Amino acid sequence: MTSRPIATPRPIALVGIGKIARDQHVPAIAASSDWSLAATVSRSGAVEGVEAFDDFDAFLAARPEIDTVSLCLPPQPRFDYAKKALLARRHVMLEKPPGQTLSEVHELIDLAARMGVTLYATWHSRMAAGVAAAKAHLAERAVRSARIDWKEDVRRWHPGQEWIFEAGGMGVFDPGINALSILTEILPSPVHLTGAVLEFPENRQTPIAATLDFTGGVRAAFDWRQEGPQTWEIAVETDRGPVTLRDGGARLEVDGTEETLPDHPGEYPALYARMAELVAKGESETDLAPMRHVADAMTLGRRETVAAFEF
Amino acid sequence: MTSRPIATPRPIALVGIGKIARDQHVPAIAASSDWSLAATVSRSGAVEGVEAFDDFDAFLAARPEIDTVSLCLPPQPRFDYAKKALLARRHVMLEKPPGQTLSEVHELIDLAARMGVTLYATWHSRMAAGVAAAKAHLAERAVRSARIDWKEDVRRWHPGQEWIFEAGGMGVFDPGINALSILTEILPSPVHLTGAVLEFPENRQTPIAATLDFTGGVRAAFDWRQEGPQTWEIAVETDRGPVTLRDGGARLEVDGTEETLPDHPGEYPALYARMAELVAKGESETDLAPMRHVADAMTLGRRETVAAFEF
Repeated sequence: MTSRPIATPRPIALVGIGKIARDQHVPAIAASSDWSLAATVSRSGAVEGVEAFDDFDAFLAARPEIDTVSLCLPPQPRFDYAKKALLARRHVMLEKPPGQTLSEVHELIDLAARMGVTLYATWHSRMAAGVAAAKAHLAERAVRSARIDWKEDVRRWHPGQEWIFEAGGMGVFDPGINALSILTEILPSPVHLTGAVLEFPENRQTPIAATLDFTGGVRAAFDWRQEGPQTWEIAVETDRGPVTLRDGGARLEVDGTEETLPDHPGEYPALYARMAELVAKGESETDLAPMRHVADAMTLGRRETVAAFEF
Repeated sequence: MTSRPIATPRPIALVGIGKIARDQHVPAIAASSDWSLAATVSRSGAVEGVEAFDDFDAFLAARPEIDTVSLCLPPQPRFDYAKKALLARRHVMLEKPPGQTLSEVHELIDLAARMGVTLYATWHSRMAAGVAAAKAHLAERAVRSARIDWKEDVRRWHPGQEWIFEAGGMGVFDPGINALSILTEILPSPVHLTGAVLEFPENRQTPIAATLDFTGGVRAAFDWRQEGPQTWEIAVETDRGPVTLRDGGARLEVDGTEETLPDHPGEYPALYARMAELVAKGESETDLAPMRHVADAMTLGRRETVAAFEF
């Protein structure tokens, strides 16, 4: 893999200007000394002061010097864009999950390697403030068991988004995969699923809740029906006491005491800093473990039908 | 990876002496000049004239010179046996599918690499008589589309096997994965799933039928309710005419004419010959593409409820 020296900040294009792009990607790039937002591609959105394309092929032909693209599209169309970008020798950064199917992501991994460009399958929750410190603590302890509680109100976080309950929409695994991305990052040894229960609303194609049992005494409970206080917590029991991530990884408690975490740039700024490193080193990062665990749960899980769900 | 020179035939142990071991593995090893069946491990079965263990740990401790084991256990217990065997530096051959979850097989792949031994995740249908010839034809043609019909009577092939309809039992993907193992072997370029319909009997946890749509114009229909003639066929349309595998890959028709296939040792003898090659070369072979396609279908597929099924 070759990486040409390029002036900092490097130009980057953002593809798919929806809510996640506006809320996270645009501010992260704006705050970055590594990157400069040089173009957007979207059928509906744009960013003030930045050249906007509504056609991806036109962008690829017009701006060959923009050698990195970040795809904030939904999973369904993402593969076609990623494939085109890689074939056009652009470095590619993917929102989570990196695809609709494991097989398509494997195709992208092989293609990136053939084209000699960087592919980064991001997991934003791995960049939460407490994750690196939790991983460091666990590396020095013997893990006895772990308990994930990822319970939120789908009506609050995905109001009216019917597609998440359609086939391929992932259901409660859409937030749950964030928990799995943290789990697979912080545990010193890999685990695998031994059983799962998936709760499908009788009128829906994806689960609204799931309980997952893994080797190593790891258990996860995902639930999208949680009203009131919301819970995004991973509690790991070790030989020397508990290591607990709260608030989706933003807070860390070790042996019952909250740790003061170092200043943190935020999840998305950290992703863009990592992408800059990968491009500079000519490397890819494509860990599919969180996505495999979801596929394993959907394959192995016992299905239970629960009450119909309407937004 | 190191491979010690060992006299031919090499000793091998067979773990799990059930129907598939008796029908396929024992005769294949008996007919092989590469292997000599040196021990069996099973709680219930044995092979006349061969030392029988009923405990795997006892076998590993007693016969360190048997450096290869073939696991014919069901998928559920297979991981624990494979992990023990790899930790004990034995080469390991796995029946299909190589595990219950993708994640556990990834753990085995990493472990085999660390221990410096061979891991072979076998797909017996890839060794069917017509598969290599079909692959060679397709390498010289442009594939336009493909159609898989894998339709058999579950009452005939799995009489009373309730477990195949329980969570994790794979349902119609148990035979269907054989078709996918051939498809992924013969196609010149990879494909991935774009949609699927899964038919779940109202009283069962796994599908009895499935329709899968892939990129590249590939469509698969799996059905376990086929009475009368049974169909295991892959028909590939190309720029120069059709290439069709029938009878699960045993027969090949090219441009409408049946090919005379060279003498073939049979699927399982071919697997054991391949295992001998891999051990001699110090290599592993662990293509999980067929298993990923099943996981993709279970993740992405739309579920339909169909009539209850009883054997």
